[in-house]
Amino acid sequence: MDDLEAVLSRVRERVLPEPEERERLRAAATALTDRTHEAIADLPVGADVVQVGSTARGTWVAGDRDIDLFVRFDADLDRAELEEYGLAVGHAVLPDGHEEYAEHPYVKGNYEGFDVDLVPCHDVETAGDLVSAVDRTPFHDAYLSARLDDDLAADVVLAKAFLKGIGAYGSDLRTEGFSGYLTELLVLELGGFVPLVESARSWHPPVEFDPEGHAERTFEDPLVVVDPTDPTRNVAAVLSATNLARFQHYARELLAAPSEALFEPDEPEPLDPEEVRAHLDRRGTTPVAVVFDAPDVVDDQLWPQLRRSLDGIVGGLNDHGFDVLRARAMTDAAGTRNGGGGSDADGGSGDREVPERAAAVESTRAALYAELEVTERPAVARHDGPPVAVRKHAANFYESYVDDVDPDTYGPFIDGDRYVVEREREFVTVRGYLESDAAGDVALGAQVEPAFADRDVLVGEAVATLAPAFGRPLRGFYEPRP
Amino acid sequence: MDDLEAVLSRVRERVLPEPEERERLRAAATALTDRTHEAIADLPVGADVVQVGSTARGTWVAGDRDIDLFVRFDADLDRAELEEYGLAVGHAVLPDGHEEYAEHPYVKGNYEGFDVDLVPCHDVETAGDLVSAVDRTPFHDAYLSARLDDDLAADVVLAKAFLKGIGAYGSDLRTEGFSGYLTELLVLELGGFVPLVESARSWHPPVEFDPEGHAERTFEDPLVVVDPTDPTRNVAAVLSATNLARFQHYARELLAAPSEALFEPDEPEPLDPEEVRAHLDRRGTTPVAVVFDAPDVVDDQLWPQLRRSLDGIVGGLNDHGFDVLRARAMTDAAGTRNGGGGSDADGGSGDREVPERAAAVESTRAALYAELEVTERPAVARHDGPPVAVRKHAANFYESYVDDVDPDTYGPFIDGDRYVVEREREFVTVRGYLESDAAGDVALGAQVEPAFADRDVLVGEAVATLAPAFGRPLRGFYEPRP
Repeated sequence: MDDLEAVLSRVRERVLPEPEERERLRAAATALTDRTHEAIADLPVGADVVQVGSTARGTWVAGDRDIDLFVRFDADLDRAELEEYGLAVGHAVLPDGHEEYAEHPYVKGNYEGFDVDLVPCHDVETAGDLVSAVDRTPFHDAYLSARLDDDLAADVVLAKAFLKGIGAYGSDLRTEGFSGYLTELLVLELGGFVPLVESARSWHPPVEFDPEGHAERTFEDPLVVVDPTDPTRNVAAVLSATNLARFQHYARELLAAPSEALFEPDEPEPLDPEEVRAHLDRRGTTPVAVVFDAPDVVDDQLWPQLRRSLDGIVGGLNDHGFDVLRARAMTDAAGTRNGGGGSDADGGSGDREVPERAAAVESTRAALYAELEVTERPAVARHDGPPVAVRKHAANFYESYVDDVDPDTYGPFIDGDRYVVEREREFVTVRGYLESDAAGDVALGAQVEPAFADRDVLVGEAVATLAPAFGRPLRGFYEPRP
Repeated sequence: MDDLEAVLSRVRERVLPEPEERERLRAAATALTDRTHEAIADLPVGADVVQVGSTARGTWVAGDRDIDLFVRFDADLDRAELEEYGLAVGHAVLPDGHEEYAEHPYVKGNYEGFDVDLVPCHDVETAGDLVSAVDRTPFHDAYLSARLDDDLAADVVLAKAFLKGIGAYGSDLRTEGFSGYLTELLVLELGGFVPLVESARSWHPPVEFDPEGHAERTFEDPLVVVDPTDPTRNVAAVLSATNLARFQHYARELLAAPSEALFEPDEPEPLDPEEVRAHLDRRGTTPVAVVFDAPDVVDDQLWPQLRRSLDGIVGGLNDHGFDVLRARAMTDAAGTRNGGGGSDADGGSGDREVPERAAAVESTRAALYAELEVTERPAVARHDGPPVAVRKHAANFYESYVDDVDPDTYGPFIDGDRYVVEREREFVTVRGYLESDAAGDVALGAQVEPAFADRDVLVGEAVATLAPAFGRPLRGFYEPRP
């Protein structure tokens, strides 16, 4: 087994930017800042420029090429003017850039190989005064810049590389992992990467850190890190219980059996149809998939809706007796920027608190995939009526069934203190349910609902046709790991 | 619709004993009492004789031919002597009688067409002093005899006929219905049969009556009638919630649509195999039956054990994912004194509080019968481990599965805050479960357990072979009524 320090040393070599990379980035940031000042000079209002994000603080992972410049306007500037002036500056600095949209529109472009965001915000006095979430970023940057020395900054890079390696980096709503700001605060709070993982292996959620000791409310989340710049905000609010547990698991694994592999994200090969069939054969389950066009929205809107839709369908399946063993929402290969299939975190929005909103890729297909233990039920279902003693209800129930000529109705009879009937079951087969209007009545995401109306329902081995388009999330499903 | 009073009048004609029947019974009871006094005179100790039960109080249903004589010995007489003298008197009075056993042995025999029980007991001063449950009976008799006039006695007969008609008469542990004493107390308390059913239709269990206002404890039963001769005893303790609800249901039906049929017990024809198959076809269920020799014990011992065994097996089936729609314990035609199949109450032990113990009929077969919604599950089953945060347990769980080479084990993976594996399921088919040792590990009745070891397991249409032997309980199962 490798020694932890030896492993970390080799990881550092890979993930810490070389001096040349740092210098290139510094030079580019300086040039962009100068250009921005010039553009501001042409405006009828004043503003300053602040470089934020990991590349501003020396906490980026080698190879990341993001430069974030925030243009701070007076706090009183109204929103329309802020947007107008912000875009004017953006286009002046990045003539080939295009507009994107987070809390405000902003300009994104390329400069000497770097991905540059030029984001307008309000220059508020404290984080408590902020007009929009974007305004928070400079406070985060100032807080961290004042406290991270070179050693801690290097440990932040290790921590980010580790979280990327285990697929838990990114506060986008698909990943539900650790944001860059959260990662930096944890390294700062615990005093380094190794102290962080040593601490994490013994955490008993809920775990709370409050670096400034100023929390003004309580939080329900499994991990709470009170924002040092805002006593009412949990920086870890997006982190899922699963990703917190995964972090603990891999923290223990790193300390027990140090390995560089933990710092290297998997890029699993897509499962092929033959492999899908082999798993079904081994497992003896019946899979179902409801497949539809993913609504044309960004991941941060799509994934909460897909999860909500999955919960709705799983609830509906279970309620109708089609017991679900395990289920997952998936998008096909078109649905991820790295060209792979669905469920892997790409960490792409880990660095900044307000994630960039990438334009949605056209014609992504989404699948609500579930493996069932039960796909058929009898023609009759038990239906418990009111207690016989509750006279009016009981009489209504009894009268409504006693003259029922439907040959599929048995009873009413009495079991314990209640009337009971066995009556025709609404859905005898899972296909009947999934193709019915009732399946669309579960809580679906608002934008999923119209797409869901035009769904394909696959039952049994037919799901193998989902590979290879959904081959990567299918491998994740059939080769589940912590 | 018939008028209630007209219906009751016709029922009275059928169920109230004619003067000749009363006179024949009175003469027989007098002759038997005289004979008993003569036999007592030959003993070295004194005793008196008291006629008890419905035939002593004029509350028997026409055609009942039971005469119960209790021989009361001094309260200090020890048990061995009581039994010796009691049997001596019994054999002297009923030379052709045979011994049976309730709390003591006693002699049962025939006299001029009447079924006579000659039961020894202790002459205690109050019900609080009683040595055995048998000693209670004379107190009950004295209490009722002092309070029931001819009109109330006639209403008691109506009430008994009604309870027999709806199959809820008898405090034996198979029927779990209304004892004769309970019926008489209720008629007395409410002031007649019609006031009783008028009251019952609006009862909201738990319902409590305490005729003497002397209850010394609380009771958990749905109907409580505190014994006027014992403030710590609920006369309705044996009554099941189902039979109480059934009584309420039929009380409402009698008042809403009076009919003599409600006073006439059904004797359903046994279901034949073709009818069983037709029901299975309509219902789309899969029936299973575990069939074995009923242990050679009396009904009051057999039925609690069969119910307990049924609960155990139903619990086991559900726990293993073989969802039960409805289930029933049954005995075959040999298991009932009236020659019919199983589940109908025969009311035979309704009149006396301590039921007679009929000799068990040899070679009764018993069946635990269940209709299933699900008969197969996948090869894998989900198994939730401890939360990842519970470090020692979590590590043990993870280690025990991570190197598992069983190809049927998936995981461990993390879902929410826990480790999860999908591992080989213990029982994939219901037959596999029911034929396994595990099925015998559920809570079975003590005397059922050895018989259960040598069980036949029927799955699916094979259960049709249970008809006609189990044809009557099968009709009850497939034509369920209140």
